Amino acid sequence: MTVSREVELEGHIIDSGMMQSCFGIIMDMGGSFSVQEFDIGRHKDEESYARMLVEADDEDQLQSIIHELHQHGVNPSDPKDATLVPAPDDQVVPHGFYSTTNHPTYIRYEGEWIEVEDMEMDCAVVVEDEDDEGGDAPRAYTKVLNAIEAGDMVVTDETGIKVQPPERPRDSGGAFGFMQGGVSSERPSESTIRKIANAIRETKKEGGKVLAVCGPALIHSGAREDLARLVREGYVDMLSAGNGFAVHDIERDIYGTSLGMDTESLDHPRHGHKHHIYTISEVIREGGIAEAVESGTIESGVMYECVDNDRPFVLAGSIRDDGPLPDTITDAVEAQNAIREQAHEADMVLMLSTLLHSVAVGNCLPSTTRVVCVDINPATVTQLLDRGSAQAVGMVTDIGTFVPILAEQLLEE
Amino acid sequence: MTVSREVELEGHIIDSGMMQSCFGIIMDMGGSFSVQEFDIGRHKDEESYARMLVEADDEDQLQSIIHELHQHGVNPSDPKDATLVPAPDDQVVPHGFYSTTNHPTYIRYEGEWIEVEDMEMDCAVVVEDEDDEGGDAPRAYTKVLNAIEAGDMVVTDETGIKVQPPERPRDSGGAFGFMQGGVSSERPSESTIRKIANAIRETKKEGGKVLAVCGPALIHSGAREDLARLVREGYVDMLSAGNGFAVHDIERDIYGTSLGMDTESLDHPRHGHKHHIYTISEVIREGGIAEAVESGTIESGVMYECVDNDRPFVLAGSIRDDGPLPDTITDAVEAQNAIREQAHEADMVLMLSTLLHSVAVGNCLPSTTRVVCVDINPATVTQLLDRGSAQAVGMVTDIGTFVPILAEQLLEE
Amino acid sequence: MTVSREVELEGHIIDSGMMQSCFGIIMDMGGSFSVQEFDIGRHKDEESYARMLVEADDEDQLQSIIHELHQHGVNPSDPKDATLVPAPDDQVVPHGFYSTTNHPTYIRYEGEWIEVEDMEMDCAVVVEDEDDEGGDAPRAYTKVLNAIEAGDMVVTDETGIKVQPPERPRDSGGAFGFMQGGVSSERPSESTIRKIANAIRETKKEGGKVLAVCGPALIHSGAREDLARLVREGYVDMLSAGNGFAVHDIERDIYGTSLGMDTESLDHPRHGHKHHIYTISEVIREGGIAEAVESGTIESGVMYECVDNDRPFVLAGSIRDDGPLPDTITDAVEAQNAIREQAHEADMVLMLSTLLHSVAVGNCLPSTTRVVCVDINPATVTQLLDRGSAQAVGMVTDIGTFVPILAEQLLEE
Amino acid sequence: MTVSREVELEGHIIDSGMMQSCFGIIMDMGGSFSVQEFDIGRHKDEESYARMLVEADDEDQLQSIIHELHQHGVNPSDPKDATLVPAPDDQVVPHGFYSTTNHPTYIRYEGEWIEVEDMEMDCAVVVEDEDDEGGDAPRAYTKVLNAIEAGDMVVTDETGIKVQPPERPRDSGGAFGFMQGGVSSERPSESTIRKIANAIRETKKEGGKVLAVCGPALIHSGAREDLARLVREGYVDMLSAGNGFAVHDIERDIYGTSLGMDTESLDHPRHGHKHHIYTISEVIREGGIAEAVESGTIESGVMYECVDNDRPFVLAGSIRDDGPLPDTITDAVEAQNAIREQAHEADMVLMLSTLLHSVAVGNCLPSTTRVVCVDINPATVTQLLDRGSAQAVGMVTDIGTFVPILAEQLLEE
Repeated sequence: MTVSREVELEGHIIDSGMMQSCFGIIMDMGGSFSVQEFDIGRHKDEESYARMLVEADDEDQLQSIIHELHQHGVNPSDPKDATLVPAPDDQVVPHGFYSTTNHPTYIRYEGEWIEVEDMEMDCAVVVEDEDDEGGDAPRAYTKVLNAIEAGDMVVTDETGIKVQPPERPRDSGGAFGFMQGGVSSERPSESTIRKIANAIRETKKEGGKVLAVCGPALIHSGAREDLARLVREGYVDMLSAGNGFAVHDIERDIYGTSLGMDTESLDHPRHGHKHHIYTISEVIREGGIAEAVESGTIESGVMYECVDNDRPFVLAGSIRDDGPLPDTITDAVEAQNAIREQAHEADMVLMLSTLLHSVAVGNCLPSTTRVVCVDINPATVTQLLDRGSAQAVGMVTDIGTFVPILAEQLLEE
Repeated sequence: MTVSREVELEGHIIDSGMMQSCFGIIMDMGGSFSVQEFDIGRHKDEESYARMLVEADDEDQLQSIIHELHQHGVNPSDPKDATLVPAPDDQVVPHGFYSTTNHPTYIRYEGEWIEVEDMEMDCAVVVEDEDDEGGDAPRAYTKVLNAIEAGDMVVTDETGIKVQPPERPRDSGGAFGFMQGGVSSERPSESTIRKIANAIRETKKEGGKVLAVCGPALIHSGAREDLARLVREGYVDMLSAGNGFAVHDIERDIYGTSLGMDTESLDHPRHGHKHHIYTISEVIREGGIAEAVESGTIESGVMYECVDNDRPFVLAGSIRDDGPLPDTITDAVEAQNAIREQAHEADMVLMLSTLLHSVAVGNCLPSTTRVVCVDINPATVTQLLDRGSAQAVGMVTDIGTFVPILAEQLLEE
Repeated sequence: MTVSREVELEGHIIDSGMMQSCFGIIMDMGGSFSVQEFDIGRHKDEESYARMLVEADDEDQLQSIIHELHQHGVNPSDPKDATLVPAPDDQVVPHGFYSTTNHPTYIRYEGEWIEVEDMEMDCAVVVEDEDDEGGDAPRAYTKVLNAIEAGDMVVTDETGIKVQPPERPRDSGGAFGFMQGGVSSERPSESTIRKIANAIRETKKEGGKVLAVCGPALIHSGAREDLARLVREGYVDMLSAGNGFAVHDIERDIYGTSLGMDTESLDHPRHGHKHHIYTISEVIREGGIAEAVESGTIESGVMYECVDNDRPFVLAGSIRDDGPLPDTITDAVEAQNAIREQAHEADMVLMLSTLLHSVAVGNCLPSTTRVVCVDINPATVTQLLDRGSAQAVGMVTDIGTFVPILAEQLLEE
Repeated sequence: MTVSREVELEGHIIDSGMMQSCFGIIMDMGGSFSVQEFDIGRHKDEESYARMLVEADDEDQLQSIIHELHQHGVNPSDPKDATLVPAPDDQVVPHGFYSTTNHPTYIRYEGEWIEVEDMEMDCAVVVEDEDDEGGDAPRAYTKVLNAIEAGDMVVTDETGIKVQPPERPRDSGGAFGFMQGGVSSERPSESTIRKIANAIRETKKEGGKVLAVCGPALIHSGAREDLARLVREGYVDMLSAGNGFAVHDIERDIYGTSLGMDTESLDHPRHGHKHHIYTISEVIREGGIAEAVESGTIESGVMYECVDNDRPFVLAGSIRDDGPLPDTITDAVEAQNAIREQAHEADMVLMLSTLLHSVAVGNCLPSTTRVVCVDINPATVTQLLDRGSAQAVGMVTDIGTFVPILAEQLLEE
């Protein structure tokens, strides 16, 4: 005896790979299917539609298949409302809670589909009724585990949830068309940077915000001045980095060195290895970066331009930090919350030679945000791009030459 | 007109490279020297002695040279007491404070040399008199910047400080003789692992403590069971890791997967990608790892053995964590303090496929602690070994085969 | 005005991704299509069939699309015979010659489909009639450019050619089911090696031949003895390597070192850096490897076992060789021919820590040969697996631990 | 009972590390020593002198120590003539022949020290008397094993040979002063390129020759036009590359693609993957690169500029080549001879993103030739720099941004 359930697929279901994934999932998981209706788009602009019956040996297996399918955008044709269960305690989710993907997601609540706000993967979905808040409509939004409060109505099981993986844009001619390119170290570097510059320009033209996630290698490799110009000229709206990035940026301002090396002359002034710790000490003495800018202790650089031009920055602490600076958020959960807020506001994210901070930001991004990832280590780029973003491009290159060429493209044309 | 100062070198000054460094530093920094006495060890057991006059154009330059020299173990022949200045405020050091190396260091105080306790690089040195504490002798010890309290007597300038970089052991025949080998990916793997096993055994025989610093790749690559055995059998005394390591270790126990993959069959059970988030949720529900072991929720693995055998562990949080688990220390400064305590107790440190945690532990180690560093990425190994440890070896290999072979060597002979 | 052509797709066209590729190609290349018949397999065992009209603006564009399509297995529904043009000169192909993929390919000749022999990418296809050779049937086979002879009948243009990309096996449960896994450094290492051992065993059981392609790192990392056992016991039927591999293997036999290091004790006997050049000199003196085995100069190792057990080996020269040994084929074209012959005989290929030789062998492999690729550098593994083999698996691990564990799996069970 | 021998050290023996190496070698090898005379340079311009007695347990051990010492520039104080033994056969060296380092070397012959010509490592030294050649003085020069002819007088054993490892230049201020910097990926990129440009300019000013060793990644990454300009403007005097480099350079000229990708627009014209094989076919048809330039088939690019400006090039074949082009030297030994000739003429070598060809060239370089090595893979850079060149610098960067910035520095100032 088998159990079965009817599901539907809509859109460019062949072209986007959805149909193939669907068949693959069912067969991999030991189920079977019969196609009941298949209306194929006969031209490239037409959408397709398929209705099929998914069969499995028992209810458990069927549930697994259905669950997996709807993560790929295949939805039951007889939708029910999502199941809501109150959280038993703070930070404790109900058993079988629904853990999110990073794709646009909808929850069926009292017969209506509500879009889930602040999409982000590995979260719970909380539904809030109008009555609770006095608002005029129910809302659904993501919450990370540690933010769950006792009594939150949490979506559990697989029913009443619709996921829409973004389709990759067909037209490769537009400003963002190249951002489906995956990763390669054997691509034409200057041409790729020109395309990235163009995509940043388009994003700004659309009124979008650009978030730069930066590692200290950017400073050591001599790209500081050019990034500072991009901040000043408004091509970078927000900055996400660690304590070390800020320290080395400021060290360069105060002592002319980065990690103790003069980035112009390549000399190592003796004592240079102490400059970073002296830098931290100076900023602590002032009370923070903004105070040190105000007092004239810091006169140039990326952090200076952020302060001077009101570009918000998040400095997240880590266990390898010296200091840290007073601005650094040392608590990881608090830092994540600050990162999350920036990530949700960003329309385009530049991940510049930092794995740790890029992963942290990437964890908070919906799959619809544009991502550019630059690192000299191909493994880092691969890992960061591997998150199903619809528009993403990775570049294996030297951040110390990338930023100057990018700045030249954006500022001198 | 030139200024000059007399310095002395003692020990195996040629063999250890100290003489060469000394000449190099003086010439690189634009000074000159004349050798006034040079008593060379005429046999390999005899020490040498040199006294020389260092000359420079002005006092500043001389100061720089002298400072650099004594970081390499060259000391003024006319020592004065160290200069002590009270810290003006909490977390604020006096200008020109002495920032430590990771080598054994002595401070001259009231005519006597006191060894600095808890040596660690990039710290201030605080001297505490008997009067303050009621003890019977003055003490000198390191303090990180953020631990400085107003009024702490902090060593400043370069006078009255003696640094002793450890000599590399000459005898390459002993159990630790191979630990000067630098890094290479083209070394005989099994033979090297056999030597590492031997060094661990010797360290235990000497009554020493072994600290394992572990990344999640260890779990994904299937080495979990063998590391758990090493913990159980007492070859690992302490554990330092991140939230992810513990989550994946426990995920394997509860769901049989790591990052959603069955590490035995290599299957990806559908739903598997949710196991890590469910794991976190389960442990939060229990209140912590020890509680989950007690209640029988966790029945095997590395964390289980740590709890069951009273091996202390530190789980340090990071901004890329899911959850985190209740045991994870989310504040970076607090986590560093916990790491520091473990690091100072360790006689041998195994750094196993984690850059972040290894750097954090490495930052707290004196140059006399034995270090073994294993990673598949040669850049990681190079970076970690590059800290002037006297006995250190790096191995570019697969942690998933390294740990099993190491366990076989240690447990089955 | 547009031009059009009718094409057909048959088989598991959705499940295998063929349908999706087809739609993508047409749209990417600026064409359009209308689906004329679409008979979808309603169960997982049923094949599907689609017939569609491809439209383009002009004949050139149409040709491009049609050509691209049939590289992905989409064939015109009105096949004509292939176009044959005689080669104008030795090593000179006719303009517009058909350059092969590595997939099974058929040529339509006098109304019949003939399978092309010795499939290999980037070759010309030569058709030979019965009259030429006195045989009883026409043959089609690949020829590399430098083997073309004046008058060879070479397939040109895109008509009359059918390409069948292999479908990836659905059943992931068999001995080779895991060989679709791509590359990862975060996989359970021991379990993966166990699966590879099993696949080798199955290949041998089926009467297949295993070709090992080996780099010198295998010797340096101490895996020599275990590979020698695999050759002796018949798990490796053929060997492909470079001059350096053989030199270091024999150096280990004669002097106990590899690259001058004792692979057991890890000592560097002084003089050791000369052992490889002395080794070459000794083998030249003997006249070759087989002669040196016969005379007792070589008494153990991989090359010894190859000679002793009649396992054919190809040693291909390169510009970085010392010596070379008399057995090394120094001419690249001649060496490629020897490699090609081995590659065509192999049913399973183990690529063990060499990029150069693995690429050379990989160039000659049809997409139906099983491939296992092992290297510590993830970029190498990615590059080698990226050739559309139907059954391939890459493993980022240490060859020095991989081979011993593989040998243990194969020999001690 | 012990045996002993007196040795001498001269020059900047402490500063250069020679003294330290000497002590280390003796102790590592189980010998002992007594210093008999030690005259230390008391100022940085004065040289030092040491005479010491090396003692060992037996003659064998002593021989080993003495041999090792003189590889580091320590010579017996009682020199004898070198031992010469005739080669017994073609390609066969006498037992115990002296295998060279890449350092400047002198042979004592009839009481006189003769400098060995064409220094290169892993060679034999052949001495030719005036009588043989009719010249007026004896000559000593290196020969690779495969060039040895029966009867050649080959230096054997360790006596009568003097090796002079080059001292690293003290003055870091000059144009080449930065070329002692080892490798790092965390250096200021633009500043380093500026210094490299300066060193090239200085080399040309001194009348020196610059050899560029190039891999195909240079073309794929879009740096072709800028390298072509450097060839045209005379900053590159000679080129060493493989078949693939030339093919992709010419493919770009004929089809506008590299590996099938348009390096400007980043589009992949369908059919593009065939361009490289069509390119080869076209050049074969013409008879070679020079012929194809002459006939107008090739109109731009690196190979074009080499032909047009009479810059000699060597294209060395490898087993992974397609084609090959008629200009490619397919025999490895023949190719090495061509490479050797170029290498011996070069005063500065730029190794640009190729491991194979850079190793081949590096094998032929004396330790006095300046070397710049650029690759995106740090392991490649480390391996290439690890040959004891006195003036060498490695840069981990993207060749696709490096060459354009270098060209800008050299051509637009």
